[in-house]
Amino acid sequence: MFDPVDHPHRRFNPLTGQWVLVSPHRAKRPWQGQVEAPTETRAPAHDPGCYLCAGNPRVTGERNPDYEGTFVFPNDFAALMPDTPAADEPDPLLRLQAARGTSRVICFSPDHGKTLPELSPAAIEAVIDTWCGQVVELGRHWQWVQLFENKGAAMGCSNPHPHGQVWGCDFLPNEILREQQCQRDWLAEHGRPLLLDYVAREQADGRRTVVDTEHWLAVVPFWAAWPFETLLLPKAPVSSLPDLTPAQKADLARALKELTSRYDNLFRCSFPYSMGWHFAPPQETRPEAWQLHAHFYPPLLRSATVRKFMVGFEMLAEAQRDLTPEQAAERLRAQSPVHYKEAEE
Amino acid sequence: MFDPVDHPHRRFNPLTGQWVLVSPHRAKRPWQGQVEAPTETRAPAHDPGCYLCAGNPRVTGERNPDYEGTFVFPNDFAALMPDTPAADEPDPLLRLQAARGTSRVICFSPDHGKTLPELSPAAIEAVIDTWCGQVVELGRHWQWVQLFENKGAAMGCSNPHPHGQVWGCDFLPNEILREQQCQRDWLAEHGRPLLLDYVAREQADGRRTVVDTEHWLAVVPFWAAWPFETLLLPKAPVSSLPDLTPAQKADLARALKELTSRYDNLFRCSFPYSMGWHFAPPQETRPEAWQLHAHFYPPLLRSATVRKFMVGFEMLAEAQRDLTPEQAAERLRAQSPVHYKEAEE
Ligand SMILES: O=P(O)(O)O[C@H]1O[C@H](CO)[C@@H](O)[C@H](O)[C@H]1O
Ligand SMILES: O=P(O)(O)O[C@H]1O[C@H](CO)[C@@H](O)[C@H](O)[C@H]1O
Repeated sequence: MFDPVDHPHRRFNPLTGQWVLVSPHRAKRPWQGQVEAPTETRAPAHDPGCYLCAGNPRVTGERNPDYEGTFVFPNDFAALMPDTPAADEPDPLLRLQAARGTSRVICFSPDHGKTLPELSPAAIEAVIDTWCGQVVELGRHWQWVQLFENKGAAMGCSNPHPHGQVWGCDFLPNEILREQQCQRDWLAEHGRPLLLDYVAREQADGRRTVVDTEHWLAVVPFWAAWPFETLLLPKAPVSSLPDLTPAQKADLARALKELTSRYDNLFRCSFPYSMGWHFAPPQETRPEAWQLHAHFYPPLLRSATVRKFMVGFEMLAEAQRDLTPEQAAERLRAQSPVHYKEAEE
Repeated sequence: MFDPVDHPHRRFNPLTGQWVLVSPHRAKRPWQGQVEAPTETRAPAHDPGCYLCAGNPRVTGERNPDYEGTFVFPNDFAALMPDTPAADEPDPLLRLQAARGTSRVICFSPDHGKTLPELSPAAIEAVIDTWCGQVVELGRHWQWVQLFENKGAAMGCSNPHPHGQVWGCDFLPNEILREQQCQRDWLAEHGRPLLLDYVAREQADGRRTVVDTEHWLAVVPFWAAWPFETLLLPKAPVSSLPDLTPAQKADLARALKELTSRYDNLFRCSFPYSMGWHFAPPQETRPEAWQLHAHFYPPLLRSATVRKFMVGFEMLAEAQRDLTPEQAAERLRAQSPVHYKEAEE
């Protein structure tokens, strides 16, 4: 008899149209490879050498204001520029197009020593309001607005000061186009938005649920690729971030605090991840297939120092995971919803 | 005027249908993030603690033979099993299918202290013959056969002994399906295989060429995502690895030795990468759209210790690179084709 905990199988991600190989029996193999440096967990509230701290100078020579709450400024090494000249596309095999956009840094708090789960719900709500404001503002000029946070050295983050980024661009990136197509196809075939159908499935089931608040649900999705990947969704239809009601935003702050606290508690470390928001493109006139959601892609697999490598077979053939999504959700559910540092205070 | 070296732009990967964002001006930003441990470069020819060395015991208790040349054995922690029972797929939103397959380890040489570029052309030819033999053998039973090598701790490799893997499976993985579709569409529209058209373009141009032998071409593809990514292609039509002629195989050994030596010479270190082969699926009855090729995905960006992180925007929106493919090819071309360790002998 087939048992998903013993037998290799594939699961289908309906948001991207991609399969993922699940090999749960494989978690037993010994690990002799690279170990990550666990993240320094007690940093000072102000670091004179940090270019994100209030009052400090940046590489440009500019000085940060004495901000409280959040602080947004243009990325000094932006990957996009607003005024690239147009480019030709002479060859169907060597297709190239100019890209335009902008890139900003969002400091979540002036406190250098805290991360998202350690901020108060009110401070997290300020981050959510800043996200919404950026989507409104940048969405006027740009076709797509990508909000994201790279957390931890293992995820390419070069500064522990709590911060994320927002990039606006004059094109719909691959992942957005792909999710849009999948959500439109689902709506056309089933008459309901894909992710609302999915929320209903997960609420009825519960095995993959990690956080369940009044308005939000965080699950290890049925098709998760990263070991402790989660999908954070509003329970009601919401096509974009600025459409959230005040009650949904306040509750989102609680859900984010709980989810990221559970992450940190799992291995008692500052849990690295890349997270970001997907929603109907700001200038989309047919947003009805879209349901707002955040993806959390954390790399850790076995401990604070041993990560999953998406290499080899994964890069060349198909993503592969070493525990079932249900097992991952169970382990996150077994953690306290209160951050271990707050619990120790 | 648009200049690809100064202006952000996107390039289209016709093999996958995905775009990549190129931000060449961004290579100037300072790096304060994670540094990798450079790989130990002088290991002994035999390591008594290595489970891949000749004559040594493995975790299973089995002992490796006193092999010369290559040695293939079943992966003791395989991600796939040959006999998974069938599974139902009751829900269009929670699709699951049993996966069957096998996984083997391929030791390239008994010499623990050498890597691919340090082997003799004859020894590399033995690796190529082993690859071909595995495709023939596993291709009889499995729909897909993925040959790959994860090299270096940064790419999740847990043992420096020169080795790769081969996984056979009873499904066509995401990447294979995607490349197959793109190559079929191109053939239908243009009447020639996509990658043969591409080889012709690159031979006529030369700016992205890294290795150019009698039968093989290695280029940093126009649409490369990883900083020093390369695509290795036969110049003549070949749909799968076992179809190579003896002359093409002997020349492939030379091309592989040169390409991987240039990689190691770039930062004078054992250059980490994942590499692997793509070709017409072994049981494919319409292989004509396919052209055999190998992908090399190396993570290093600036030095032996500073890598590119495909995180944040890359995971959530679109791959992004910090130098142009032409700049990367120029730097690889500027290296000696002879490995720095052999040059020093
Ligand atoms: O099989 P290995 O070498 O132990 O493991 C490595 O390669 C596998 C196949 O690409 C990956 O799934 C693992 O994440 C990686 O660590
Ligand atoms: O912009 P940062 O934080 O310096 O850089 C980080 O995030 C970027 C956006 O995801 C990535 O392109 C970089 O590879 C990563 O190191």
